[in-house]
Amino acid sequence: MRAAVLHELNKPMTIEELELRSPGRREVLVKMVASGVCHTDVSISEGTLFMMQKPPLPIILGHEGAGVVEEIGEDITEVAVGDHVVLSGLGCGRCRYCAIAMPMLCLNQFQRGPINYTNKGQNVFHFAQATFSEYSVVPINSCIKIRQDAPLDKVCLIGCGVTTGVLSAINTAKVRPGSTCLVIGCGGVGLNVVQGCAIAGARMIIAADILDNKLEMAKTFGATHTINSKSGDLVAQVKALTDGFGVDYSFEVIARGPTIEMAFESLAPNGLCTVVGAAPPGTIVHINTDLLFYERALRGVFLGSPRPAYDTPMLVDMYMAGKLKLDELVSQNLSIDGINQAFADMKGGKVARTVIKYV
Amino acid sequence: MRAAVLHELNKPMTIEELELRSPGRREVLVKMVASGVCHTDVSISEGTLFMMQKPPLPIILGHEGAGVVEEIGEDITEVAVGDHVVLSGLGCGRCRYCAIAMPMLCLNQFQRGPINYTNKGQNVFHFAQATFSEYSVVPINSCIKIRQDAPLDKVCLIGCGVTTGVLSAINTAKVRPGSTCLVIGCGGVGLNVVQGCAIAGARMIIAADILDNKLEMAKTFGATHTINSKSGDLVAQVKALTDGFGVDYSFEVIARGPTIEMAFESLAPNGLCTVVGAAPPGTIVHINTDLLFYERALRGVFLGSPRPAYDTPMLVDMYMAGKLKLDELVSQNLSIDGINQAFADMKGGKVARTVIKYV
Repeated sequence: MRAAVLHELNKPMTIEELELRSPGRREVLVKMVASGVCHTDVSISEGTLFMMQKPPLPIILGHEGAGVVEEIGEDITEVAVGDHVVLSGLGCGRCRYCAIAMPMLCLNQFQRGPINYTNKGQNVFHFAQATFSEYSVVPINSCIKIRQDAPLDKVCLIGCGVTTGVLSAINTAKVRPGSTCLVIGCGGVGLNVVQGCAIAGARMIIAADILDNKLEMAKTFGATHTINSKSGDLVAQVKALTDGFGVDYSFEVIARGPTIEMAFESLAPNGLCTVVGAAPPGTIVHINTDLLFYERALRGVFLGSPRPAYDTPMLVDMYMAGKLKLDELVSQNLSIDGINQAFADMKGGKVARTVIKYV
Repeated sequence: MRAAVLHELNKPMTIEELELRSPGRREVLVKMVASGVCHTDVSISEGTLFMMQKPPLPIILGHEGAGVVEEIGEDITEVAVGDHVVLSGLGCGRCRYCAIAMPMLCLNQFQRGPINYTNKGQNVFHFAQATFSEYSVVPINSCIKIRQDAPLDKVCLIGCGVTTGVLSAINTAKVRPGSTCLVIGCGGVGLNVVQGCAIAGARMIIAADILDNKLEMAKTFGATHTINSKSGDLVAQVKALTDGFGVDYSFEVIARGPTIEMAFESLAPNGLCTVVGAAPPGTIVHINTDLLFYERALRGVFLGSPRPAYDTPMLVDMYMAGKLKLDELVSQNLSIDGINQAFADMKGGKVARTVIKYV
């Protein structure tokens, strides 16, 4: 089997033939059908993801995958061979955060698991579900069974980016129908925040970015207004669109201190700023208490507060019912041999999502 | 009639004989029975309240009053002469914030009203309900009728400090039963945050202050643990008390940037930091996004998100039922002639509350 292996930060991955161990008692072997390329993978490859600045090397990345169950461990009853699954971190199901439906805060999820892959006997590490690989062995808690009629090369995106964006609006911020929203940053996740606000019934969705092609995409996903931030003071423009009040909800999806501050300063009294982006380690945001006092709030979010066993099949159903856009997110399909091109296109702001297709 | 008049910032008030106009059609003349002395009055007198750094002078302060209706305007049907009332800003009842039960964000509340008081023909301004005066003319929206059997020299405190503290826990943060809480700052408002957490059923309430006498009072109001912040790293001590996690809810009731940052940094993942204190103008809080990411939130609060027409009678009933402590808040009673002493005692951290009694 083949996989994309990163040997050194900021260097291209290489496609290699590897050996993969068999699934343990509570594990599943998944034959990958498709995987989105998420900015988190790019950040890890650059050593800038604040949770993982020094990944073990060599490593297989990728965490936005969907595939078919190829083999199950002895104690698996939840899925069967041939089932279609979306891969997503689901937590241990037992810790104090899993217990309160916050599996993304699972205390056990970032424990390093066993070595799955080897290359001629040499260990190859992996991140999350290692979806930049033709096959992956994953804990059953990372497998969410979905309906068989959903196209895996589209619903794979629900594994991370769509979930993070849409659910940041729906689960985390709980956007109200009729409200006003601002979304700063219209990449793959930001477009899904726009989409989440639209699904939630917001009456005004202001999309901001510095790239006009992304703002055009934002309109497709439900933006009612767009602002190219290069055109001048973003906060002033948002206030001008909202009778001077500012918005009820703002979302920062760029992961930089200054844009988080703009998102907060664009709020109306009683407004909520949700920080979706994972900013570089140690980023400091400056909050003026004069604004905070009027019942404004700043909130961080980890992947859209998902409960994948509940939310993933819901989002798949929404897509199949025509209520969730996924096709429009896929800028291009590439084979695993194109993984470095996919990374370059994401860094260049050219694509919402590249989907790697294995079959 | 007599009132305490501030002629110059940072100078003592003088007790003066004044003339008071009659109530207009939708106004009420209240004979003051008692008024708490709140730190907001002190801040205004020092020019450090961020909403009102340059109060008009001369001015009558005081906004934590209770009294008896002495005379009503032509169009008043809500209260009658002889009714007992607690005075509290209630908003206009019509603007976009009053409409969503957020009257403390009322767009019309800080419009300067007419001149009520004169001294031999010279205008004397007033702040809020001017409760440092034997009589006050207030809009009907500032009068909340309460039961006649409640002692006005105790329930006057519900006008501001008790409301701000208790409701910051109950209304704003919505503290869950069984949760863990930290309250930094145990003055009059902070003690009531402690009390609010206790009423909400928190299992652990850590009170922090630099004065041991205040920490002792905090125990009376329900603190399960106390930390004198002078004893070392507050955040580390809070983590040590909470199995390394931090607390579910933290409250900052001092109104300083560094203590707001400590309150935020003391949170467990998914925790909420509520900033109760109104910090000096332009105070900047530094928030590390590494902490924010794990679903932590920072929220400002304006007077505990009160809906006085609902919450004030509720709190009076709770006091009368023995479920809300007020007596323990009253450190001393003084006449209006002691107003400067009351301010000095508050600045010195000697008292939770001084109550001025007029009769």
